Amino acid sequence: MSETSKRIVIVGASAAGLRCACRVKRLQPGWSVVVVEAREVFSYGACGMPYVLSGDIEELGVLRKTPYGTDRDAGYFASVKGVEVVAPWRAVAIDTESRTLTITNTGDERVLEWDELVLATGATPRTLPGQPVHERVRAFHVWDDVKPLKIGLMRGEIGEVAVVGAGLVGCEVAEAFSSLWGADVTLIEAAPTPLPEILDPELGRVVAKHLESRDVKVLTGCPVERFEPDDEGVTVHAGGNEIRVDVAVVAVGVRPKVDLARTAGVSLGPTGAIRVDEKLGTSVPHIWAAGDCAEVHHVVTGGPAYTPLGSLANRQGRIVGTLIAGGEGSFGPIAGAAAVKVFDLNVASVGCTEYRLGADGQGVRSVWISAEDRAHYWPESKLVLLGMVYDPASRRVLGVQGVGEGGEVAKRIDVAAQLILRHATIEDFIELEHAYAPPYAPALDPLTVLACAAQNELDGIEAESPLTDLSRATVLDVRIDEERKERPVEAGTVVSIEIGELRDRADEIPGGPLIVVCAHGTRSAEAVRYLASRGIQARYLGGGMSWRVRAK
Amino acid sequence: MSETSKRIVIVGASAAGLRCACRVKRLQPGWSVVVVEAREVFSYGACGMPYVLSGDIEELGVLRKTPYGTDRDAGYFASVKGVEVVAPWRAVAIDTESRTLTITNTGDERVLEWDELVLATGATPRTLPGQPVHERVRAFHVWDDVKPLKIGLMRGEIGEVAVVGAGLVGCEVAEAFSSLWGADVTLIEAAPTPLPEILDPELGRVVAKHLESRDVKVLTGCPVERFEPDDEGVTVHAGGNEIRVDVAVVAVGVRPKVDLARTAGVSLGPTGAIRVDEKLGTSVPHIWAAGDCAEVHHVVTGGPAYTPLGSLANRQGRIVGTLIAGGEGSFGPIAGAAAVKVFDLNVASVGCTEYRLGADGQGVRSVWISAEDRAHYWPESKLVLLGMVYDPASRRVLGVQGVGEGGEVAKRIDVAAQLILRHATIEDFIELEHAYAPPYAPALDPLTVLACAAQNELDGIEAESPLTDLSRATVLDVRIDEERKERPVEAGTVVSIEIGELRDRADEIPGGPLIVVCAHGTRSAEAVRYLASRGIQARYLGGGMSWRVRAK
Repeated sequence: MSETSKRIVIVGASAAGLRCACRVKRLQPGWSVVVVEAREVFSYGACGMPYVLSGDIEELGVLRKTPYGTDRDAGYFASVKGVEVVAPWRAVAIDTESRTLTITNTGDERVLEWDELVLATGATPRTLPGQPVHERVRAFHVWDDVKPLKIGLMRGEIGEVAVVGAGLVGCEVAEAFSSLWGADVTLIEAAPTPLPEILDPELGRVVAKHLESRDVKVLTGCPVERFEPDDEGVTVHAGGNEIRVDVAVVAVGVRPKVDLARTAGVSLGPTGAIRVDEKLGTSVPHIWAAGDCAEVHHVVTGGPAYTPLGSLANRQGRIVGTLIAGGEGSFGPIAGAAAVKVFDLNVASVGCTEYRLGADGQGVRSVWISAEDRAHYWPESKLVLLGMVYDPASRRVLGVQGVGEGGEVAKRIDVAAQLILRHATIEDFIELEHAYAPPYAPALDPLTVLACAAQNELDGIEAESPLTDLSRATVLDVRIDEERKERPVEAGTVVSIEIGELRDRADEIPGGPLIVVCAHGTRSAEAVRYLASRGIQARYLGGGMSWRVRAK
Repeated sequence: MSETSKRIVIVGASAAGLRCACRVKRLQPGWSVVVVEAREVFSYGACGMPYVLSGDIEELGVLRKTPYGTDRDAGYFASVKGVEVVAPWRAVAIDTESRTLTITNTGDERVLEWDELVLATGATPRTLPGQPVHERVRAFHVWDDVKPLKIGLMRGEIGEVAVVGAGLVGCEVAEAFSSLWGADVTLIEAAPTPLPEILDPELGRVVAKHLESRDVKVLTGCPVERFEPDDEGVTVHAGGNEIRVDVAVVAVGVRPKVDLARTAGVSLGPTGAIRVDEKLGTSVPHIWAAGDCAEVHHVVTGGPAYTPLGSLANRQGRIVGTLIAGGEGSFGPIAGAAAVKVFDLNVASVGCTEYRLGADGQGVRSVWISAEDRAHYWPESKLVLLGMVYDPASRRVLGVQGVGEGGEVAKRIDVAAQLILRHATIEDFIELEHAYAPPYAPALDPLTVLACAAQNELDGIEAESPLTDLSRATVLDVRIDEERKERPVEAGTVVSIEIGELRDRADEIPGGPLIVVCAHGTRSAEAVRYLASRGIQARYLGGGMSWRVRAK
C-alpha cells in the first residue's frame, strides 16, 4: 500500500469514525487523518449507558476509558493512534467540487480540505409525533442523557418512570430503573409484545412475563397518544391509560443523521439512511459512509435495511479505513444478529421475524422448541425457548430467536448467524457441528433440535404456537403424573396418557383434531407422529408446557 | 418414503445405534428394527460419568434417565420408540451372503436376518504396552467402571490416585477425584502439556497451571514405563518418577471396536476404524457404520480421522437411520470441535493444532490474543486466551483454540467451527457477525480480534509465543505503571515507555531486536507497527502479560 499521501477527513468520532481513522493511520502512518466531532465527550461505550444508570457500572467515565484506564480523549488519539480529533466542532457543509468540509465552533469557522471524506455521523433518537421538548420527557441516547436521570434516582426525585418503547434500549433502561433503584417502571409498547423488531410474539410474551415478574408494569399494544408534562412530572396518555410518572424516557429507536450528506447531494436509500455500495462508497466519489448513518443490505430479505448496531459500526469503520488506505475489503450483507439482557433473561435473535416477513406476504413458517442448554443431567442446565422462521419451499432458515435464563443464547445466535449469512437450510442446521461436553451443551445442540422440529413439520408433524388458546381444544397430555401435577394444562377437554402407554391404551385416545402436549415439545411431537399413523389428526404444542406457564 | 418392509438389525445400543433405530422406526413405523447390545445397561450419558464420580451428579442412574425421569431400558424403547433392544446378547458373526447376524447369550444362540445391518459397536479403552490386568489399574470408560472408584472414594480407601493421560477424559477424571473428594491426584501425560490433541503448548500450559493451582500434580513429558500393582496399591513408573498410589486410572484414549466388522470382510481405514463413504456405507453393501467404530473425514487435513465424540455419533446415527428409511442425507467432513471443563477453566478447540499440522510438514503459523469476553467495562467480564492456526499462503484458518474462566469458550468455538467447516479465511473471521451487547461480548468479538492479529502478522506485525523465554531478551514494556507493578516482566533488559509516550520518547527506545509487551497483546502490537515505521526490528508477546503469569 504505497500511495501518494492523502488527507482524510472523517465526520463523527464514534465507533465507525474512530475505527476508520485508526485503521487508515495504521496502514498509512504518513497520511493526515482528522476526525471532526460535534460533542465534547466522544468515543465512549454508549451501549454500556443503561448499566451506568442501573449502577452495575459505577461511573459514566468508565465507558470512556481503555481497558487499562486511560481516557479516550483527543490527547489519547493523538499520542497513541496519531489521529487528530477536532472537537467540539460541528461539520456544517461539504463542497464536493473543491473537496472541502466547513466546520464551525461558536462563531469560528474552518475549512478542511480532503481527498477522502467519511461520513460517520451516527443517529439521533426518534421522537413521537407531538412529543414535547421538556425535561420530564427525555431521550436515552448520549452521554449527557444519563446524568440527570441518575442524579434524579439517587436523590429520590425519580420514583416513578414511564419507558416508552420496549425495544433493546427500552428494555435495558426499564431494568436499570427498576433493578437497583426500585423505581416503579411502566414499559409502554405499541406492538403486541416487547422487542418486536427481534422477537415474534411467542418469545416476546416470555419477555413480557419476565419483566412483570420483576415488577415492571408492561403495557403492550399501547401506542402513546400524548405527553402532558408539568413542573412536577408528566402524564403519559397511551391506549386509553393515563400514566402519571416523574419522568418519561422515550426509546422508540433512532434515525440516521443525514442532513450533512443530503445537502451535499449524497443519495439516501429507501430506509432514509445513506445509500452505500459494498465498498461503503456513497453516490458521490470519494465520499464514504459507515456506522449508524449508513444503510446495509440484509441477507434474508435481499433488500436494504437500517440496523444501527455498534458491532456493525466497528466493522464498517475498519473496512472503510482499509479501503481508503488502499487495501482490500467489502462489507457484505448482514443478518441482523442482536442480543439484550432483560434482568435474568438472555434474549437474542438473528435474521427476520415471521411478523416482518409475513407482512411482506411471504409464506414463511415458524417452529418452536424448548430444550435444556446443557446435558439434561447437568445440575446447572437451564431451559431455553428457541424459535425458527423458515421458508417451506426452499427450506432456507430465515431467522432464529431465543430466550432463556441460561442458554448462552447470544452465542448460540452467533452460531446461527454464521449459517444464515451463508443461506443455510434446515438440513445445514441439523448437521451443525458443536463442541460437546455435558457442562456446555447436550449431545444434540438445541439449534439442531430446533431444526429437526422444522424438518418434522415439513414431514407433517406440525407445531401449534406456544400462545395457542387451548380453552376449547381437545388436548392429549402425554406427560407423566408428576409433570402434570406440577404444571397442569387447562383446556376444553384433557385426556392424559403417558407417552409410554400410548400404544397399549390406543382405544382411549379421543378423536381428532387434537393438540398433544408434553413438557418441552419432544414427546408430544413423537405422539403426533404415532397418531398420524393411526389416522388421527393432531398437532403438538410448540415449546411444551414448561414455557407455556411462563409465557401465558 | 414408501418401500417394502425391511428388517433392520443394529449392533450396539449407544448413541449412534439407538438414534439410528429410533429414526428408522419414526420414518418407517412398519419395519422391524432390532438393536443387539452386549451389556446389561445401555443408553446412558457416558460423558456424564466423571461428574457422577465427582458427586456433581448424585447418582449414576440419572445418566440413564430421560429428562422426565424414565429409565431408558428395553421397555422404554419398546413402548415409546417401537424399537426392540435385545440385551445382553453378543453379536458374534455376520454372514454377508445370507444376510444374517449370529448372536449369543451364555450358551444360547440366535440368528437374526437383516436387510440392512448397522455397525455401531463403539470403542474400547486403549491400554499401554504391558499394562497389567489388575483392580488397581483401571479404565474409565463404561458404567461398570464408575462404581468401584466411587465406593473406594466414599469409604476413604482411595486417597491417592494417578491418572494416566491428560486428554479430555483424563482431565475430567483428575478433577473429579480432586475437587469433591480431596484425593491427591497425579496427572501423568507423555506429551509436553495437557490436552495435546486439542491444544498447542501455549494454551496447554495454562491448563497445566490451572490444574496445579487446584492441587493436582501434573507430570508432563512423562511417558509411563510400567505399573507395579499389589494388594495395597500400585506403583507407577513414569519418566524416572515412582508414583505410589491407591489406584491408577488409565485414560489414554480409545480404539474402535472392529473385530466383528473385520471378520465379516468389512474394510477398515488407515486409522483402524471402519471405512465409510459420505453415506456412512461400508465396503460391504447393506452394511453401514456409525459412531465410535467409524472413520470420519477431516475438513482441515482433507484426510481420514478418528474422532470418537458423542455429538458426532448422534448425528451419524440419525443420518444412517434416515438413509436406511429411504430419505436423503450425508455425513460431511468434520472439524473436530471439542470442549472440556477443567475445574473453573473452560477449554475448547476446533480444527487442528499447529503441532499436528507441523508434524505433517505443512508451513502453518499460529497467533494468540487475550481479550475480555464481554465489554471490558462489564463488571463480570473475564479474560480468554485464544489461539489461531492458519495457513499463511491461502490465509485459511485451520484451527482455533481457547481457554478462559468465562468466555463462553465452547460456544465461541462453535462459531469458529461453522466457519472452518466452510473453509473460512482469516478475513472471513474478521467479518464475522455477532450478537453484540455488553453483557455478552465486546463490540469486536474476541474471534474477530484474533483474526485481526493473524492479518497483522501477515502484514509483518508478528507475535512471539506466549511461552517465549524472555531471560535474555530486550523487552520494551508499553504498559502503564500500575500494570507493570501488578505483573512485572522479568527479562534480560526491560525498558518501560507507556504506549501514549512512545512517539515523544522515541529516542529512549533501545535498538532491536525487541520484544514488546503489554497486558493483552493489543498495545504491544500497535507499538511494533510504530517501531517498524522507524526501522526498529520488534515482535510483540502474543496474549500479553495477563496470560503469561498464568501460563508460566
